[in-house]
Amino acid sequence: MKAEIITIGDEILIGQTVDTNSAWMANKLNLIGVDITRISSISDKSVDIVKALDNVSKETDFVFITGGLGPTDDDITKKTLAEYFETKLIQNKEVLNHIEQFVIKRKAHMNERNVKQADVPENCRIIENKLGTAPGMWFEKGGCTFISMPGVPFEMKEMMSNSILPELSGRKRDIHILHKIVLTQGISESKLAEILEPWESKLPEFISLAYLPSPGLIKLRLTAKGIELRLLENTILEKIKELKKIIPDLICGYDSDKLEELVGKILLMKGQTLATAESCTGGNIAHLITSVSGSSQYFKGGVVAYANEIKENTLSVSNSDIDKYGAVSKQVVEQMAKSILNLYDADFAIATSGIAGPNGGTDEKPVGTTWIAVASKSKLISKLYIFGDQRDRNIQRASLTALNMLQKLANDKEM
Amino acid sequence: MKAEIITIGDEILIGQTVDTNSAWMANKLNLIGVDITRISSISDKSVDIVKALDNVSKETDFVFITGGLGPTDDDITKKTLAEYFETKLIQNKEVLNHIEQFVIKRKAHMNERNVKQADVPENCRIIENKLGTAPGMWFEKGGCTFISMPGVPFEMKEMMSNSILPELSGRKRDIHILHKIVLTQGISESKLAEILEPWESKLPEFISLAYLPSPGLIKLRLTAKGIELRLLENTILEKIKELKKIIPDLICGYDSDKLEELVGKILLMKGQTLATAESCTGGNIAHLITSVSGSSQYFKGGVVAYANEIKENTLSVSNSDIDKYGAVSKQVVEQMAKSILNLYDADFAIATSGIAGPNGGTDEKPVGTTWIAVASKSKLISKLYIFGDQRDRNIQRASLTALNMLQKLANDKEM
Repeated sequence: MKAEIITIGDEILIGQTVDTNSAWMANKLNLIGVDITRISSISDKSVDIVKALDNVSKETDFVFITGGLGPTDDDITKKTLAEYFETKLIQNKEVLNHIEQFVIKRKAHMNERNVKQADVPENCRIIENKLGTAPGMWFEKGGCTFISMPGVPFEMKEMMSNSILPELSGRKRDIHILHKIVLTQGISESKLAEILEPWESKLPEFISLAYLPSPGLIKLRLTAKGIELRLLENTILEKIKELKKIIPDLICGYDSDKLEELVGKILLMKGQTLATAESCTGGNIAHLITSVSGSSQYFKGGVVAYANEIKENTLSVSNSDIDKYGAVSKQVVEQMAKSILNLYDADFAIATSGIAGPNGGTDEKPVGTTWIAVASKSKLISKLYIFGDQRDRNIQRASLTALNMLQKLANDKEM
Repeated sequence: MKAEIITIGDEILIGQTVDTNSAWMANKLNLIGVDITRISSISDKSVDIVKALDNVSKETDFVFITGGLGPTDDDITKKTLAEYFETKLIQNKEVLNHIEQFVIKRKAHMNERNVKQADVPENCRIIENKLGTAPGMWFEKGGCTFISMPGVPFEMKEMMSNSILPELSGRKRDIHILHKIVLTQGISESKLAEILEPWESKLPEFISLAYLPSPGLIKLRLTAKGIELRLLENTILEKIKELKKIIPDLICGYDSDKLEELVGKILLMKGQTLATAESCTGGNIAHLITSVSGSSQYFKGGVVAYANEIKENTLSVSNSDIDKYGAVSKQVVEQMAKSILNLYDADFAIATSGIAGPNGGTDEKPVGTTWIAVASKSKLISKLYIFGDQRDRNIQRASLTALNMLQKLANDKEM
């Protein structure tokens, strides 16, 4: 099955918004065997939308369209699609009802614009928008399916995940595509590639490997394409087994597992709790942990000890140690970890102290220098890392490294 | 001047890579008066490249092409362009020399692939690649300029910034494009549109308005297009002045200002400090504040008081108030704010307590219910918000709302 993606919106063409929707859609569609042949971003002018639709290749089975469905006057996708598919807009009672419920729930009042959002092209199938007021639309024309969705990422993703992808993946396929992702932590991309070279060179032709690096984490993606689903599944499992033997200490998860979710699962299972004492990561570790639903069951809380006086007063870090070794030191980060463990009566603690940059570095301790400690009631482990020179990347790398250290401590693994 | 952007590479079509190059180029080109009419991502197959080139609109003055110039066999852009522009590849001595220097500098040896990179289409102008081995290429055909660059972001950016943009911006321009962005906070998109309707309807034809919503923030983008730069500038300023009178309380910044940067600027200017006491936002406010370089000058630190025992023990919140009013209440959030202000000896404090979801809601306090307090030494203001039902969005909306409340308090504005 072949598909094209069209994103509508001036914000992309003037470079104000990076089109992340298309990559997300392409990735998900790929997983169910849909090949994306082109992604286009066009303006929200009616004439450009029509031109783009006319331009779709004849071999295309699906066209996914996002954007231009908002309640304001600059959003003209719906009107244009109605004209293009030679139909008129009529009010849909179900959609109107949904919008009313949506608006009431937010303690707001229906206005004219809300009502107008319930007008939909007569010949399209409606896709419910559980998270917003603009419905999705499903058209069929000349053997091609056109699906129009809102450009708001979480609305589009909900629609794709719960309505569109399940329907498409149920259709008969001529080819299967399987992806398996292995999360690794604690090594550079080029070093990892060097270690894995002999293994990679022996991968069968129907399996490909991609390195997907992000700050603090490298994902390895294995993709298998072929007709026999069972063969693909078995071979991928076999290859992952081999990988586990080659880099046992570097693998920290699989598929879409995030480290903060993995840590959460372990703590929940053990019925144990966590507290954090952050300096250079500035609350990002607590933020990652609490981004996971249900984290209140194992996360007690934390201190962001940005100023040294907070380290001293709240976390009882020795003033003379700060003077002698500096705030970014083994001594200080270990005291922070021990102190928060006791103060918050937790089973595990994480502490960070580093120079996130871009300023504050010295010859001895350049920007990126970061001490991380993890502690349980019986163990205290601290490590020194030298990350890079970009503030946001340093914060993210330190946070993920700390979560991985905690995961290893909680699992009683070597570090 | 009109332009299209074509990015070549399978990694974008399978959703492995987000196309950030196009947004960067579009933004820079827009600033010098080049209108981007379409961005397309296509595969690295010769037939698709040719199809995309054939497809370029006749009104287009420039086509910017990135990707497919690497040394490996899957990169066929150069060969395809040579064929498309009816010429052959010949070795360019200057390019060869540059590649040799480049390779030697990296203590590597020239190989066959390196030598091949010096083969370039005979009828193109070469753009030097200071940061890599693949040269850029500049073709003219039928009144349109085609510029091919590597897909590696920092190589492309160097070429654009130091060679292409200076040349284009030196050319005489027929049209100017100006953007001005107004950040608003605390209102829904449809309500805002309703309020602004009379103002919007009076905008002159050469100014357009777009609504760009994100969790907790709606950006209004005014775009002015025309020949007389001075007229555009004056009219935009005039319209913003009007806007300030219509929604004085909703505007929280301009252009690419982030709220955490605005808050930082105010505190720096006043020489005052901030501390945070977060429950439902779980450290995200501290994280946003410390994502700004130099924040250690005004951010003392914070407490993430996730468990009620931490609220009681660390922040001296009254146990009986938690029992009586619940942790998500005016009483608790105000005590949290006052307590952290004193404890950390700060000039300003932020406190949050809410139900981020998806679980934990009740009939009386549904998911999204959030109390936010801001405090100075003389003032304490708390407000109740009902956000939505998505955890990540609730956290982000509560965080930005809190930062905006703090901004207003620090600026002595009404809330």
